[in-house]
Formats: sequence, C-alpha cells, structure tokens
Amino acid sequence: MAGIKVHGTPFSTAAARVLATLYEKEVEFEFVPIDMRAGEHKKESFLALNPFGQVPAFEDGDLQLFESRAITQYIAHEYAPKGTPLIFPDSKKMAILSVWTEVEAQKYDPVASKLTFELVIKPLMLGLATDFTVVEEFEAKLGTVLDVYEARLGKSKYLGGDCFSLADLHHLPTTDYLMGTQVKKLFECRPNVSAWVADITARPAWKKVVAMRAH
Amino acid sequence: MAGIKVHGTPFSTAAARVLATLYEKEVEFEFVPIDMRAGEHKKESFLALNPFGQVPAFEDGDLQLFESRAITQYIAHEYAPKGTPLIFPDSKKMAILSVWTEVEAQKYDPVASKLTFELVIKPLMLGLATDFTVVEEFEAKLGTVLDVYEARLGKSKYLGGDCFSLADLHHLPTTDYLMGTQVKKLFECRPNVSAWVADITARPAWKKVVAMRAH
Repeated sequence: MAGIKVHGTPFSTAAARVLATLYEKEVEFEFVPIDMRAGEHKKESFLALNPFGQVPAFEDGDLQLFESRAITQYIAHEYAPKGTPLIFPDSKKMAILSVWTEVEAQKYDPVASKLTFELVIKPLMLGLATDFTVVEEFEAKLGTVLDVYEARLGKSKYLGGDCFSLADLHHLPTTDYLMGTQVKKLFECRPNVSAWVADITARPAWKKVVAMRAH
Repeated sequence: MAGIKVHGTPFSTAAARVLATLYEKEVEFEFVPIDMRAGEHKKESFLALNPFGQVPAFEDGDLQLFESRAITQYIAHEYAPKGTPLIFPDSKKMAILSVWTEVEAQKYDPVASKLTFELVIKPLMLGLATDFTVVEEFEAKLGTVLDVYEARLGKSKYLGGDCFSLADLHHLPTTDYLMGTQVKKLFECRPNVSAWVADITARPAWKKVVAMRAH
C-alpha cells in the first residue's frame, strides 16, 4: 500500500521529531510501533529500513528514509503546501534557517541528549543510577549554548527567523524531556529562551506527540 | 564590497568542507585567514560572525552564515548552475542524499573527528600525547559505521546516489586526515570504501584545498 509509514516509538526523541513534523504538516500517516525492549530494531526486517538499527524508519510509497532530520526536511519540502510551512521560500532566509538546524544538530543535541540520557532514560527507563558528575559537566556546556540562544532570541522571535520552523521543531523532543528535570532551571533563568520553550512546547502538533506516549 | 568571503583556516575540517564546495562550484571567493593560535576566533569581531567562536564564518554580500554544512547547502543551492551540481533536482533523490549528509553529521563525523583529534591534532598541532585507549574505542565505532558504508557503496557508486554530491564531499576533510594515520587500515580492508576514498580524495577541487595548507 502506498502512503506514509513511521516505524518507531514516540518515546524516541528522533521518532518524536518526525511525528511532530507530520502533525504540523497535517499529513496523514500510519504509525508502526517498534518494540525496542524486544530488540525489534536490530532484526533483519528493520535493518532493511535503517542499516544503523535505530528508530525511526520512514516510508512514503516506495521511498525509504532514515535519520530524523533528513525525514523532516523531506516532509517539509514534499508537502510544502499543507499545514505549517516549517521552511522558507526565500533562499537567504532558508540559509539562516539551515544555520540553526545545524546548530541544533551539532551544538544543542549532543549536550541535551547526554543530559536526557543521564536524567531521564537511565533512571526512568533503564533502572540505572544517574552520574551527577556527567550532569554537572554537561549542564555547563548547555549553559554556553543557551547563552547564544538567549542573544539570538532577543533579535528574532524564533531561532530560524520570524516564524516557527524546522529549526525550532527539531529542539522539541529533547527540550521537553529536560523540562521535567533539574536542567529546567537553565532554561528558566534566561527570559528569551524561557518564553521560546513555553511557546514551542504549547503547539497542538507537539501535544499530539506527547499524547501518543500515554497509550 | 559584495562577494563571498570565507573566514577560517584550511587546516580546520569545517572550513575545508566549505572551501572544497566553493572549488567544486567554481565560485570565486576571498579567503580571510583567522589566526586561531592567537585566539582570533574568540575576539569580538569574529564572534559577530559566529557566536560560537569557531571557524569557518561565511559572507555572501550582506548574508552572514556559520556552521559548515549550512554553508555548503547554501552554496550548492544558490549557485546551482555553476560547476559540479552537488545536489539533485529530483525531490526523492534529494531526500536520499539528505539521509547520507545526516549520516555523515550524526554517525561518521563524531567518530572520525575524535580519531582526528587523537591522531593528528594532539600530536602534530598541540604537542600532546595520543590516548590510545580512546583510539581503540573509536576505531571499533568507525568500523561499525564503515560496514554500513561498504554495503551502501556496493549498491550505489557514491553515498548520496549515482553522482558525487555533498554527501560525499562532507566526508573529505576528516577522511583525508585519517588516511595519514593508522586508521587508514579500516578503510583499506573494505574494497568499496577504499575505492570511494581514492575517488573522492583525487578530485581537483579537494586537491586545491590541500594545496592551501602548504602556504
């Protein structure tokens, strides 16, 4: 059958990034749950969709993709007329947007993912103890990144420009997890960052992704 | 003055990625050397171009960009008719290309950069000792990534598709450094990977970047 399929779990930050994009674009899709506790993502059938054995995997008819940020870009371009734009038609505005999607991928995500692993995944999902030495080290790194964000968001309502875009959306899954941890204070003490987080986490599309975790 | 300026050093893998793109596109530019040993990248004038204080920074008239992969994308799109295409007009082919630029950024670069730091930057540029425990750990990780590349390059001449593209180009700076180290063996023992490395490192545009280091 043709149509869009997302293979993954809404608890995965990478899968949640793709789900949020599909809800923003109001594009219909089928969600195929992958049971990672049962190691389903390391089985041959899943490895055929993503050779790295990580969720999500994505299908649109006979097109098969992996890597969450490649998938969100594809959806934003292919379904441009539907839902929230998420990208900009002007090439220079789009270049600025790309700077901030790269900042998320290169500067924010490595730090935010490490903190999410220590403060959420280890204690709540794996039953392991948090290493607070690592937390302290990465809180300092996150602070440095958020200082740049605070300045940027003083000049621009959203990271990528005047409107909500992929540059903001890509931050949602890790940021939402961190807002439930002690790291929340690093966002709250920076007024522009704090207002931005409140704005983007309140979006109906993101709330739909969070609601998927309750099932 | 209008025109393209690249601020950086050709020894930086991120700056080299941008320089290789400009040479492939046959786009004229002015190179502005940044003396990192003198801490020029942490001075106010440079931080105005890149708030993270890292090379490269890029200007095209009044457009200012940072993050190497955002810059290469901009150049490839903005100067599409010139030089080597580097991107594909078909949206599905472009989506596959994006998967592999993301694989470079998320899977290859973190491992290759760590090995470059231990085996090139520390001993040759900083006068520090290589930590061979780290090297061993990251050689194992690189091997896992190159296994996926070996399979991919058995089905496709280049990572992103049938033609050389940004997906291959983004690998050049770290890969070229690693080919001068003990890590070379991990590439050479995989025939498809080995042929791909020989092909992309022989490109005239890349040789121009390497030649810039001799000055």
